[in-house]
Amino acid sequence: MSNITKAIQETAEETRNYLKSYFEKQKTHTKLFEAMEYGVFPGGKMIRSFLVKSSFKTLGIEEKLYLPVAAAVECIHSYSLIHDDLPAMDNDDFRRGKESTHKAFGEYTAILAGSSLLTLAFEILTDPKTDFTSDIKNNLIYSLATSSGHQGIAGGQFMDLSLKKQNITKESVIDMQNKKTGELMGFCTESAAIVSNQDNLREKFKNIGVKIGLIFQIADDFLDKYGDKDKIGKPVKQDDVKGKNTLINLLGDEEAKQQAQSFLNEIKQDLEKFLPKSEELISCAEYILNREK
Amino acid sequence: MSNITKAIQETAEETRNYLKSYFEKQKTHTKLFEAMEYGVFPGGKMIRSFLVKSSFKTLGIEEKLYLPVAAAVECIHSYSLIHDDLPAMDNDDFRRGKESTHKAFGEYTAILAGSSLLTLAFEILTDPKTDFTSDIKNNLIYSLATSSGHQGIAGGQFMDLSLKKQNITKESVIDMQNKKTGELMGFCTESAAIVSNQDNLREKFKNIGVKIGLIFQIADDFLDKYGDKDKIGKPVKQDDVKGKNTLINLLGDEEAKQQAQSFLNEIKQDLEKFLPKSEELISCAEYILNREK
Repeated sequence: MSNITKAIQETAEETRNYLKSYFEKQKTHTKLFEAMEYGVFPGGKMIRSFLVKSSFKTLGIEEKLYLPVAAAVECIHSYSLIHDDLPAMDNDDFRRGKESTHKAFGEYTAILAGSSLLTLAFEILTDPKTDFTSDIKNNLIYSLATSSGHQGIAGGQFMDLSLKKQNITKESVIDMQNKKTGELMGFCTESAAIVSNQDNLREKFKNIGVKIGLIFQIADDFLDKYGDKDKIGKPVKQDDVKGKNTLINLLGDEEAKQQAQSFLNEIKQDLEKFLPKSEELISCAEYILNREK
Repeated sequence: MSNITKAIQETAEETRNYLKSYFEKQKTHTKLFEAMEYGVFPGGKMIRSFLVKSSFKTLGIEEKLYLPVAAAVECIHSYSLIHDDLPAMDNDDFRRGKESTHKAFGEYTAILAGSSLLTLAFEILTDPKTDFTSDIKNNLIYSLATSSGHQGIAGGQFMDLSLKKQNITKESVIDMQNKKTGELMGFCTESAAIVSNQDNLREKFKNIGVKIGLIFQIADDFLDKYGDKDKIGKPVKQDDVKGKNTLINLLGDEEAKQQAQSFLNEIKQDLEKFLPKSEELISCAEYILNREK
C-alpha cells in the first residue's frame, strides 16, 4: 500500500472514531438515529477529511484540531449522499457497498436522517467542547452553510437533475460539478485558512479545493465508464444509463484527462511555496486523479 | 382586529421584509431558488417570529435585533413544512392556502429547497452583517441545530410517522409534540436569554416556549377536528384520516382543554415578574390557545 493510501486510511479511522464518540454522546436510540449511523458509518474513503487534515498541515496548524471540521464535513457529505440516492433524486439502491439508506430504512426515515446529519454538522462545530474561538466557529459555519445550500451542494444536485435533457455547455457542467463537489472540497481546504486566521489565504485555499473537486469528478466519470464495480462498491456505467452530463461525455476522454492534469499542475504551483508541509495535500490531489476506486 | 392579532401581523410583515432583502442578496435565479421563495413566502402567521420578538421585549433587548433570529427560525420552520408535506411523509397537497411545494415544483426540487432553507438559517445567523457577537451567534446556532435535528423537529416528525399504528401513551405523544413543535418554539423564547447574555434564564425561557408549543399543538388538534378549512387554508379532519396520534384523541376534548389551560397558567406565572414587558408574550400564548385559524 502506498504512503498516501495509508495516510488517507489512518485519517478516515481517526475521523470515524471522533464521530463515533460524538454519536455516543447523543443519548438516543431511535431507528432514526440508527439510520443516521448507517448513513455515516463506516463511510467511504473520507477523502474530504484528509483534505482538511493535509490543509491544516500545510498551514502548520496543530494536527488534532482538524477533527471537528472533518467530522462536520463527513456529516454534510453523508447527508448529501443519502438524499441524492432517494427515489425522487438519483434512485440508487446501493452506496458504499451496501444498500442505500432509504432501501435499508425506508424513505421518510432516510430523508429525516439526512436532514439530521446536516444539522448535526453545525452542532459539532458550535459544540462548547469544540476547541476554536467563537470567531473561527462563525467563519467556519458561514462558509460551510453557503457551500451546502442552494449555492453549493443542493444547487449542484438540482442542476444535475434538471439539466439532464437539455443542451448543455462545458461551462454549465463545470458550474454544476463545482457546486455539487467543488464547494464542499473547497470548504475543506479553506477551513485551514479560517482556523489559522489567515483571511488573505481563504480564497486561494478555497480554489485549491474546488480544483481538486473537478479532478475528483473527472476521475469519477472515468471510473464509472471504465472501472470495476466490485472495487468501487457500486454499479458502473450509470452515467450513460441515467443520461448524466459528465465532462468526459462533453470533452471526450483525452481532453478531460488533459483538463484534470492541468488542474493538478495549477494546484502544485499554488502549493509549491508551502513545501514540504504541503506534500501530503499535493499527494492527495495526485491520488484523487489516479485512484482505481 | 384585536391588538395582539395586529401586533402579530406587523411582526410577520417585518420578518418577511427582512427575509426578502436577504433573499434578494443571494444573486441566483434558479427554479430551486424560486421553490425556496415559494416555500417561505408569504409564510403563515409567523407566530414563531412573534415569539422571538415578544421574548426580546420581555428581556428588554433592543427591538430590531430579533429580526435575524426570526428570519432563521422561519427558514427552519418552512423547511420542515416542505419536507413534512412530501409524498414519503404526510403526503399533503396543500399548505398555507396554496399547493404544497412538491406539488408546485416537483419532488426533488422540494427536497432540495427544504434542505437549502435549513442551511440558509445558519447562513443568516453567521452572516458578517448580522449584528451579534460571535459568542452569541455560536450559542444561537448550537441551540437551533439541536432543536432542528434528530432530537428536535426531525426526531418529532419521525415519531409522528413511525408511532402511528402502535399503542401509544400520553407521555410519548407529549414527547413527540415537544420535539416536533416545542423545541423550535422553545428556541424562539430561549433566544432572548441567549442574546441578552443571561445564561441563568435560558432553561426557564426555553421551557416557556416548549409549553407554548404544546398549547399550539392542542389548539391545532381542535382546529383540525372542529375548524373551518377555508379559514385555516388547508383541509380539516386529516388527523383522523391519517390515523395521527393527537392529545385530544388520547385525553378527550375536555382534559386536553384543561391541560392547555394549565400550561397557560404556568406560563403566566413564569412571566409575571417581567410584567409589563412580558405582556405581549403572555397575550401571544393566550392567542395561540384561542385562535380560530
